[in-house]
Amino acid sequence: MALTVTNLRRAAFAAVALALVAAPARAEVDPEVQYILNTFSFIVNGALVMWMAAGFAMLESGLARTKNVATILLKNISLFAIAGITFYLVGYNLMYMNVDGGWIGSLAIWSQSDAVGDAIVYEAGTYSSASDWFFQMVFVATAASIVSGTVAERSKLWAFLLFVVLLTTISYPITGSWVWGGGWLTEMGFLDFAGSTLVHSVGGWAALVGAIIIGPRIGKYSKDGRVNPMPGSNLALATVGTFILWLGWFGFNGGSVLALGTGADATAMSNVVANTSMAAAGGVVASMILSQLLYKKVDLTLALNGALAGLVSITAGPDTPSIGGAILIGAVGGVLAGLTVPLLDKLKIDDVVGAIPVHLVAGIWGTLAVPITNADASFVTQFIGIVAIGAFTAIFSAVAWLLIKFTIGIRVSEEVEHGGLDKAELGLEAYPEFGRGSQTM
Amino acid sequence: MALTVTNLRRAAFAAVALALVAAPARAEVDPEVQYILNTFSFIVNGALVMWMAAGFAMLESGLARTKNVATILLKNISLFAIAGITFYLVGYNLMYMNVDGGWIGSLAIWSQSDAVGDAIVYEAGTYSSASDWFFQMVFVATAASIVSGTVAERSKLWAFLLFVVLLTTISYPITGSWVWGGGWLTEMGFLDFAGSTLVHSVGGWAALVGAIIIGPRIGKYSKDGRVNPMPGSNLALATVGTFILWLGWFGFNGGSVLALGTGADATAMSNVVANTSMAAAGGVVASMILSQLLYKKVDLTLALNGALAGLVSITAGPDTPSIGGAILIGAVGGVLAGLTVPLLDKLKIDDVVGAIPVHLVAGIWGTLAVPITNADASFVTQFIGIVAIGAFTAIFSAVAWLLIKFTIGIRVSEEVEHGGLDKAELGLEAYPEFGRGSQTM
Amino acid sequence: MALTVTNLRRAAFAAVALALVAAPARAEVDPEVQYILNTFSFIVNGALVMWMAAGFAMLESGLARTKNVATILLKNISLFAIAGITFYLVGYNLMYMNVDGGWIGSLAIWSQSDAVGDAIVYEAGTYSSASDWFFQMVFVATAASIVSGTVAERSKLWAFLLFVVLLTTISYPITGSWVWGGGWLTEMGFLDFAGSTLVHSVGGWAALVGAIIIGPRIGKYSKDGRVNPMPGSNLALATVGTFILWLGWFGFNGGSVLALGTGADATAMSNVVANTSMAAAGGVVASMILSQLLYKKVDLTLALNGALAGLVSITAGPDTPSIGGAILIGAVGGVLAGLTVPLLDKLKIDDVVGAIPVHLVAGIWGTLAVPITNADASFVTQFIGIVAIGAFTAIFSAVAWLLIKFTIGIRVSEEVEHGGLDKAELGLEAYPEFGRGSQTM
Repeated sequence: MALTVTNLRRAAFAAVALALVAAPARAEVDPEVQYILNTFSFIVNGALVMWMAAGFAMLESGLARTKNVATILLKNISLFAIAGITFYLVGYNLMYMNVDGGWIGSLAIWSQSDAVGDAIVYEAGTYSSASDWFFQMVFVATAASIVSGTVAERSKLWAFLLFVVLLTTISYPITGSWVWGGGWLTEMGFLDFAGSTLVHSVGGWAALVGAIIIGPRIGKYSKDGRVNPMPGSNLALATVGTFILWLGWFGFNGGSVLALGTGADATAMSNVVANTSMAAAGGVVASMILSQLLYKKVDLTLALNGALAGLVSITAGPDTPSIGGAILIGAVGGVLAGLTVPLLDKLKIDDVVGAIPVHLVAGIWGTLAVPITNADASFVTQFIGIVAIGAFTAIFSAVAWLLIKFTIGIRVSEEVEHGGLDKAELGLEAYPEFGRGSQTM
Repeated sequence: MALTVTNLRRAAFAAVALALVAAPARAEVDPEVQYILNTFSFIVNGALVMWMAAGFAMLESGLARTKNVATILLKNISLFAIAGITFYLVGYNLMYMNVDGGWIGSLAIWSQSDAVGDAIVYEAGTYSSASDWFFQMVFVATAASIVSGTVAERSKLWAFLLFVVLLTTISYPITGSWVWGGGWLTEMGFLDFAGSTLVHSVGGWAALVGAIIIGPRIGKYSKDGRVNPMPGSNLALATVGTFILWLGWFGFNGGSVLALGTGADATAMSNVVANTSMAAAGGVVASMILSQLLYKKVDLTLALNGALAGLVSITAGPDTPSIGGAILIGAVGGVLAGLTVPLLDKLKIDDVVGAIPVHLVAGIWGTLAVPITNADASFVTQFIGIVAIGAFTAIFSAVAWLLIKFTIGIRVSEEVEHGGLDKAELGLEAYPEFGRGSQTM
Repeated sequence: MALTVTNLRRAAFAAVALALVAAPARAEVDPEVQYILNTFSFIVNGALVMWMAAGFAMLESGLARTKNVATILLKNISLFAIAGITFYLVGYNLMYMNVDGGWIGSLAIWSQSDAVGDAIVYEAGTYSSASDWFFQMVFVATAASIVSGTVAERSKLWAFLLFVVLLTTISYPITGSWVWGGGWLTEMGFLDFAGSTLVHSVGGWAALVGAIIIGPRIGKYSKDGRVNPMPGSNLALATVGTFILWLGWFGFNGGSVLALGTGADATAMSNVVANTSMAAAGGVVASMILSQLLYKKVDLTLALNGALAGLVSITAGPDTPSIGGAILIGAVGGVLAGLTVPLLDKLKIDDVVGAIPVHLVAGIWGTLAVPITNADASFVTQFIGIVAIGAFTAIFSAVAWLLIKFTIGIRVSEEVEHGGLDKAELGLEAYPEFGRGSQTM
């Protein structure tokens, strides 16, 4: 059943590519070779995106306090598992099946695989169904991962996982169908190459609403208005997590070319990967300069979040900027994320890992920046897309978090929060042998 | 010297693929392109399998106690090095050279590489000799890695490494030749796609026999029958190790299609990779539910082992199930592994990392599950293969472990075990600056 | 603007490959398919090389003391960002633009990307410009990473980063242009496949000169001549860093075939990757035997550095040895690196991570070893190249380090060094919650 899905995400790109190439009359690449290369691109790039789950797990467990690290780790591996299963059962269908300019797909639960023996007709642009499914599946977990960092250290394990089920089964696929499923926003001309809005802002909105409804960690904000830093317990893990995400993003953005069967596809993938890396570089350097200017010190966690903000920023349009443009887009993203951190603290919104600045703010910036280098995008349409998807996700998340709050409960008891979720919810510790230092809270 | 090896593992697959495809008459893919793609698949997927060595190192060092972590790390990096060298010198030849329905290959020590200048004739299905050698080489270290976790914290470094030499030079290649070398079990119709039995159960049997002969760690089992938990010292490492293994398994199973030169190969690889990931997802979720039901808590280490058990389970036949089937096969594997843990404790078999439940039990299950979705497999033949390979490996391992025990000795002194292997065998500590907490034993 | 750059690194290889292949008359691979495969090889292998940045970060932070870990982490992520930006602005041009037998390229700041719509003419051996740029860019950060480990724990953050700017903007590209840019050393016949000299020795020379000018850490060498060990704080991180580097090196060397468009390219890449892995294996085993003989113990850090020394050793010529030869080349590299460690201590040159033995000494050895298996190389020319590049880099580094020393200052105050750079320069700690053990200095 190769390519019966109307995947507009790909179709839109292919149309642009074909129009632009204006190739001299020559034989196209053997369609079977195209099929192989398109499929292999989905596999390799999808594997890199899966690897981002490890990156989120390390980043978040490095930025949390030791007493909650095992719970964060469990959340990250289980949300990846759950998101894959719900996306298989429902989400993929809602997002990609027969959307055709509408608001939602049909629920045609099906096998996403071709049997090896199916009489596949190889045509230009075709690929194996399972490879496409795999590549789209690993994206949905990313959105859920973003949420887990923000609401860490005080939300209940099963409550959080229930939210993941709701987000990945209903909300993410519906807003996704509007664009990558070929729905109304794609018809309007909204462009979001690999998901600054569809993945990162969606995760960011869900996290923001969650942080507000769940409330800050005990002791984070004193009554006298002071913000008490709760430093991450293992910055080596946070750093390797950031490197993992940087690497994985080559697959996230590079694979979103959605093809490797023609020279134009390969050229596009090269540009995308080079721009992705350099946007991260721009984010790092801008964050370091910002923190040196603001605080007279260079903060490692700000630099890490600068890299991630650069990556999120370029994700909406990594195909059109020059390398220099990508560096600047990433740098602006890094600065915006860095400036949002104190703002959230002023609003007493407690975001353990800084996911809201990185994924929501830089995601909005990146989506708005597309028209700067891409003549096919319009500022107004980008704005409409951001607002529509943001409003849907925020409202959905509010309903979902409140539903959970008033049924199974959303937040652990004060006692559990003080003692740490690991002992209470898991009955173990992440680092049982390492003595406790003075900063332990 | 491309493809002079009769690699039945590939040939068997190709025959099935050809028979099934029933393609309309069309030109096959340019044989030189097939050669390139087949070769590149071995390189990329082999690199992912090599990466699993890092996964085992992190998993095992995260689940051991700090005083033995450096030794575990050294074991893992050195076994990978040693297994490669012995496989080069002897093992690859025993496993693949002129087995032809027999029980063992010939010992024709040779260069596994083609010179770039060799006049290679590109035909359908060919690939570079060194790429095939590289891909098979990284598999043998996996079997050895499995053993290292089980017998950790009390076995001598050089004794363990000697066992690795024996296992990878003699035992693994001989049982491997029966199937992937085209030996008698392949002639019977035994199917083990990427090695639930040939790699994982083999490692599991060697580990089980080793654990029995070496005996449990001091203090693990009290005389009054109590089991004293010895919790892992760094669950962040154990988690990233699991993610590494999950990622590497895409290469382990995906690369075992052994080709990427045709559309059918690409389709097969997609199905295999998607199924591999979803079997792990099934294992995670099933383990979490199991541990919530049994212990009223969700245990992180059980979830990690659930992922791995799911991966092991699907490895014998990742090509034929639907995605839903793969989730179920992985889920059953996760449950079986979870139920085996207390059973081993009842038998006073001390398995530091849970490798026996994960690799032996789930490996047997996965091999038996092949006929459920693959009409070419028979339950009886699968059973015969499991028993034959298990018996050979168990007997070989018993002889090898006992030989080591009564020559250079297998177990460190009680004093060394108390103080930790790191100080005694390596003269250093893995975490010299981290103070000791209350749980240190 | 595909392939207007005269990339002699590639051209030299292609010429050899063409001369050797002596293929029977048959159609060459479709040039567009060659373009795709060459480009995809640069992307995948470049991603692996980027991943080495994470490896250096983990290796170095694992071998440093906790009080300086956050600074090391920040140095590693920021140098990767900075090196990419300077290489984009200046370095790539100096290294590759119109060198043509000369000593330096022209400074033609340009966009390294083709637009997807450019009318690219696909010819044998072509590839996307951005993919080549990406692959070369990730190399330059490697050279800078090598320096950061040696001068850790006492050099100022911004001083070090200024050195990175100078090295990557001027020094590395100029010596690089002599060989990979097609300059005078390539004309002489100097061979350095993936950079034992051009990358690793260059980093090693810069590190050696830096270590001499900056001086040893306080307390490392007592006045009575005693060497005080300052053990690494987290050997699990150091080990995973080594595994990351091992994996990344498949891209470093494998990608340096610079093409995947023909069967000969694929054969070469296979040989290179298999040899790379086995040289590392040889380095591990040789280091372990050496340390058992010298110290009656097997040192984990020596084994890790043995792996890296093996990798550096094979990097100058991974394409011509047999697998057995690669094991031996790596083994000699491991032994030479192991013997250099005490020598440096005798000279009171304080190299925190052992980068000088691994990258400089093994880099020289590897470059000298090329003629053993490659008839196109001559011992005299290899020697001239090593001396010329070494002299240039050492003199440049001395000037740069001294310039920094007498302007912004190179070394933190004694007080800061005692208290750790993390608190003073970053205002945070890498592991704030882990109590301090007895070995803390």
